[in-house]
Amino acid sequence: MAGNSFGTIFKLTTFGESHGEAIGGIIDGCPAGVTIDLNAVETEMNRRKPGQSAIVTQRKEPDTVRFLSGIFEGTTTGTPIGFVIENSNQKSKDYDHIKKTYRPSHADYTYDKKYGIRDYRGGGRSSARETASRVAGGAIAKQLLKDIKITAYVSAVGSLKLQKSYSEVDFSEIEKNPVRCPDAQMASEMETYIKDIRKQGDTVGGMVTCVIENVPVGLGEPVFDKLHAQLGKAMLSINAVKGFEFGSGFDGITMKGSEHNDLFETDGSTKTNFSGGIQGGISNGAPIYFNVAFKPVATIMQKQNTITSEGEIVEMQGKGRHDPCVVPRAVPIVEAMAALVLADFWLLNKLSKL
Amino acid sequence: MAGNSFGTIFKLTTFGESHGEAIGGIIDGCPAGVTIDLNAVETEMNRRKPGQSAIVTQRKEPDTVRFLSGIFEGTTTGTPIGFVIENSNQKSKDYDHIKKTYRPSHADYTYDKKYGIRDYRGGGRSSARETASRVAGGAIAKQLLKDIKITAYVSAVGSLKLQKSYSEVDFSEIEKNPVRCPDAQMASEMETYIKDIRKQGDTVGGMVTCVIENVPVGLGEPVFDKLHAQLGKAMLSINAVKGFEFGSGFDGITMKGSEHNDLFETDGSTKTNFSGGIQGGISNGAPIYFNVAFKPVATIMQKQNTITSEGEIVEMQGKGRHDPCVVPRAVPIVEAMAALVLADFWLLNKLSKL
Amino acid sequence: MAGNSFGTIFKLTTFGESHGEAIGGIIDGCPAGVTIDLNAVETEMNRRKPGQSAIVTQRKEPDTVRFLSGIFEGTTTGTPIGFVIENSNQKSKDYDHIKKTYRPSHADYTYDKKYGIRDYRGGGRSSARETASRVAGGAIAKQLLKDIKITAYVSAVGSLKLQKSYSEVDFSEIEKNPVRCPDAQMASEMETYIKDIRKQGDTVGGMVTCVIENVPVGLGEPVFDKLHAQLGKAMLSINAVKGFEFGSGFDGITMKGSEHNDLFETDGSTKTNFSGGIQGGISNGAPIYFNVAFKPVATIMQKQNTITSEGEIVEMQGKGRHDPCVVPRAVPIVEAMAALVLADFWLLNKLSKL
Amino acid sequence: MAGNSFGTIFKLTTFGESHGEAIGGIIDGCPAGVTIDLNAVETEMNRRKPGQSAIVTQRKEPDTVRFLSGIFEGTTTGTPIGFVIENSNQKSKDYDHIKKTYRPSHADYTYDKKYGIRDYRGGGRSSARETASRVAGGAIAKQLLKDIKITAYVSAVGSLKLQKSYSEVDFSEIEKNPVRCPDAQMASEMETYIKDIRKQGDTVGGMVTCVIENVPVGLGEPVFDKLHAQLGKAMLSINAVKGFEFGSGFDGITMKGSEHNDLFETDGSTKTNFSGGIQGGISNGAPIYFNVAFKPVATIMQKQNTITSEGEIVEMQGKGRHDPCVVPRAVPIVEAMAALVLADFWLLNKLSKL
Repeated sequence: MAGNSFGTIFKLTTFGESHGEAIGGIIDGCPAGVTIDLNAVETEMNRRKPGQSAIVTQRKEPDTVRFLSGIFEGTTTGTPIGFVIENSNQKSKDYDHIKKTYRPSHADYTYDKKYGIRDYRGGGRSSARETASRVAGGAIAKQLLKDIKITAYVSAVGSLKLQKSYSEVDFSEIEKNPVRCPDAQMASEMETYIKDIRKQGDTVGGMVTCVIENVPVGLGEPVFDKLHAQLGKAMLSINAVKGFEFGSGFDGITMKGSEHNDLFETDGSTKTNFSGGIQGGISNGAPIYFNVAFKPVATIMQKQNTITSEGEIVEMQGKGRHDPCVVPRAVPIVEAMAALVLADFWLLNKLSKL
Repeated sequence: MAGNSFGTIFKLTTFGESHGEAIGGIIDGCPAGVTIDLNAVETEMNRRKPGQSAIVTQRKEPDTVRFLSGIFEGTTTGTPIGFVIENSNQKSKDYDHIKKTYRPSHADYTYDKKYGIRDYRGGGRSSARETASRVAGGAIAKQLLKDIKITAYVSAVGSLKLQKSYSEVDFSEIEKNPVRCPDAQMASEMETYIKDIRKQGDTVGGMVTCVIENVPVGLGEPVFDKLHAQLGKAMLSINAVKGFEFGSGFDGITMKGSEHNDLFETDGSTKTNFSGGIQGGISNGAPIYFNVAFKPVATIMQKQNTITSEGEIVEMQGKGRHDPCVVPRAVPIVEAMAALVLADFWLLNKLSKL
Repeated sequence: MAGNSFGTIFKLTTFGESHGEAIGGIIDGCPAGVTIDLNAVETEMNRRKPGQSAIVTQRKEPDTVRFLSGIFEGTTTGTPIGFVIENSNQKSKDYDHIKKTYRPSHADYTYDKKYGIRDYRGGGRSSARETASRVAGGAIAKQLLKDIKITAYVSAVGSLKLQKSYSEVDFSEIEKNPVRCPDAQMASEMETYIKDIRKQGDTVGGMVTCVIENVPVGLGEPVFDKLHAQLGKAMLSINAVKGFEFGSGFDGITMKGSEHNDLFETDGSTKTNFSGGIQGGISNGAPIYFNVAFKPVATIMQKQNTITSEGEIVEMQGKGRHDPCVVPRAVPIVEAMAALVLADFWLLNKLSKL
Repeated sequence: MAGNSFGTIFKLTTFGESHGEAIGGIIDGCPAGVTIDLNAVETEMNRRKPGQSAIVTQRKEPDTVRFLSGIFEGTTTGTPIGFVIENSNQKSKDYDHIKKTYRPSHADYTYDKKYGIRDYRGGGRSSARETASRVAGGAIAKQLLKDIKITAYVSAVGSLKLQKSYSEVDFSEIEKNPVRCPDAQMASEMETYIKDIRKQGDTVGGMVTCVIENVPVGLGEPVFDKLHAQLGKAMLSINAVKGFEFGSGFDGITMKGSEHNDLFETDGSTKTNFSGGIQGGISNGAPIYFNVAFKPVATIMQKQNTITSEGEIVEMQGKGRHDPCVVPRAVPIVEAMAALVLADFWLLNKLSKL
């Protein structure tokens, strides 16, 4: 309840600081009998890991997940799945200069005030390194969900915005470029732009779109735990996220009811999908789609003024190896969090009726 | 865990269907010693209730909250606060025509599939009537939070969008017009537009902006229960909400880190507030501000085709008394949910350090 | 989380003080499709209510449960079941004399210290009146569990102890006498003894035994939420309970492994049942049986010295209408709590394996 | 919620099977600023570990706790404390003979039925090896609680019962003998008896008594999470426990109210302590004391008939290295669980009043 667990039944609890000994977590509530493909877990970890391409941070972290329990002879046993990811490549020295300095728009100031103590090495717990544990947990959730297909991709980098709806893009293009944008031309422009931003010592924001297909009708628990409310919380809990919209989203503001209503086909499906696959907080079987807005990374390689914990003004400049734009690496994290939400609701839904 | 509770320590659990005997709830975890002003509760209820102005639904519901426990001689005792709001004006007959019909973009279809049974009268549990319990709970939370000021207002109705930032508006204007827009000119335009929409038998979407001032540093529980993640969930759990953004929000996508970073003053405050008062999921003392997008109400007074539970196509038309635009009445609901989130984190934060 | 909820999925939250306006609760997580027999609920309430016989308190409380939601046309809908029981017969005046006095071995002192305020009327929240809400919740749980048979009975009153094991008693005898002891001879002795104790202005302790039959294999969630651990918590949360044992219980201390081990039959059942129907925290299909120890009621009709909140010594004597021995009325409460535990685990067990 | 977490705010989640790679856990909710003495943790682990004396199992497990996060430069940071204990000495071969065999009065049968799969090596998750994680978590809880003194000791082995109340024993004697009985003479008899039982290839039950001193008034959360209810659950969740009683316990059954009531001194303390330091579920400042009953260990070195998963009858005999009586090693486990309960309520109590 101090915020390090996610989920009701299929529950992931994570631990770990970016420059501590290791990070990891426990998945509690995964049913027995799920066949686990460890290669599939590794694939997800590799999609998130640093150093995977020229446009992301060049840190080298192997990010190998060591599962310690809950899987016996390749199958889940119903007991908690503990796992650890060692922190092998942390360079704590990179952070000596910020020991008493609060980096602008990071969590340094708020952590120090809240806890009265701060593990200053690389952001400690507030570092996005924690999301590696989410990807590991999400990879297990995906294997539980088997038939449900979760696909995220980059739909904007700065002002470069993909002008195609979720139903018009070719998902097979996503992993063909380092940006993870499912449009080769746009991906190329984005890649050039990110490289340019990095040369400036600057960073830029972006957007990830996620589509979930083959969702059974009935997922979501009204009234507070509506499917989209929990998806929204999941996404907003990812580092650097500033906004979430699903279905018609913010565009729905300007629409009229007569346009926005999704009329039924006789089989219960709908002619349009402004609802985004969710009605009254419960999946209706149509594709779920949503957008997640990411701010620019706060660590920039330009000089900025900031303050120390004593309130003195000092000049600082980012050191270490950081991403100029988080969205390419955020794609598997968005998918992982979506998988965690769906796994939980998929299980809970088995209890909806006698 | 079946979704009808909100909060960890200051926890509201609600019950009730729109046309059942009563709705209500239990607030558990309110500390002893909070002086309760029942008139203040009534004021909040009146801001939400139907029939309060010419631009909202003309249903008459007195929405009197009867507190049954937890308050003794005007002060909370630390025991759960149970309350009931009778459903005195429900017209179940208005809903006979939808007994076997699924209204487009309502929860009729999904509830029926999920639960195998549906209280068809007025949407049952999925009706926005449930939010009356949230407003009652939020009114208690507000009294716990005393010095924290939560203010919501309408910032868009359809394409009519208020072109002022949260720091430019005059909060004292909000309650002076039935739209609850803090700009008399814009409010007047919005009012005219809503009336026009209603004449068309149609509905329209809108946006509510919320500002929270005098927030102590330290509220929010990383990593999953970040302050904005929980606010996002709270808002997305309100009926008809399609999107949430805080601070720079979706506009942050196109910004560079060098512009977006909020540089410190020597006292720890920041020169700008793109962070929206929250860094690393924890409040930093600056005003928190966020936008909530509402879709157009699904019940329209125009004829639409839809299907029955047997899959037959039938023509239907909205009956009863409905809102042409929900945002004026959504303002107190947004505030109530924000108050619930803050009350919970305000209590939890007392446990952050020895 | 402030202690007024019980259960994970099938969750009862209660509210209410003995002399407030009403008590009641919310059952969240009951699946849709359970046929509800309101007469069966009333029967349970009548087994608990005061004034039902000559050996219990002569207060008159009708204890009518008014269900407000979650049941539509006789069937649960999957939405929360809210209910209220009015406090119609409270005599607050009976308590004026204890306004500033702490009754010995009651919760007056601890509530006052913990909360800084005390609803002194009849013990307020700490009164056993709260258990009426538990019996209402348990009555719904029993209807969900249908085939599982939960039977409690009085097995001791003071030194009068029933010398028969759970498998030797005739359950049909239980409700034939006001003590609820399934042995006519012993029941008669107990009744005489209780009457005698009351004449002395004194009270006495007792024991309730509970047997649960037709339990499916697999209920209970290791490691912390073992079936017997949750049963133990449930029982210990009932007013006046001082101890809990299941299976061989405290007698198991003196046994050897070679005697205590329950050897299997070829069908998986066991020749003996020292395990009490639970192995490793999970039901094994054999009858579950346990004992619950109740202390003597603290309110006695004899003069006692006690202190005021200012630490002055005063003489006091119980007023009002109280039970000389709680166990006859505790029988339905023990059953209700057992039903709540089993309903929760019965639902959770559906998620154990794919 | 699948049973592997304990606590509301100060929450321990454990993972791990006896013969998997490692066991461990996460403590979430420990406030920042607690100084951690790792030697004190090791001391607790050594009190529980196998091979520590001639009367316990001779397995050799170093049981070194490796803390991975949440502690920075010797102090807790408010972030989750992850830890791992490697399983270095498991001899899985010892269990090949039970691969398809259900050991009597173990969890083999129930786990297999519940989960459809069983990690048969050493009991897997149902093994008491899991309690090592509890002791590690409890050792941190003890350091949070500083001034509260938790002391457990062996009060019975088989029929050998210590005839002294909690207030008559000399706690400094406890660790002076391998039985952990605070009476040298009785300890010696118990030791001889345990050795004799082991020679017979048999096992025997026992009892642990626990005393908690210097408890502040106000711990415990009525009505369901009463202090003794949560203590009871904690104890009953320990392997082999069959019963729990506090204060007057089962002896309270035969007492009269006029004897049992604890009369006040003018300072709010009580002349007697039949209440066991808890009234209305809340600590009253007097010592808390309770008894925990343990059954005889199920694994015996004598031949027994049992069944295979196919229902065939086979003869089996315990192999490996097992305890003839669990209570000496259970002492630190009882203390650890008590510490977890108290840490949680100690934190929660800070939220009781404004």
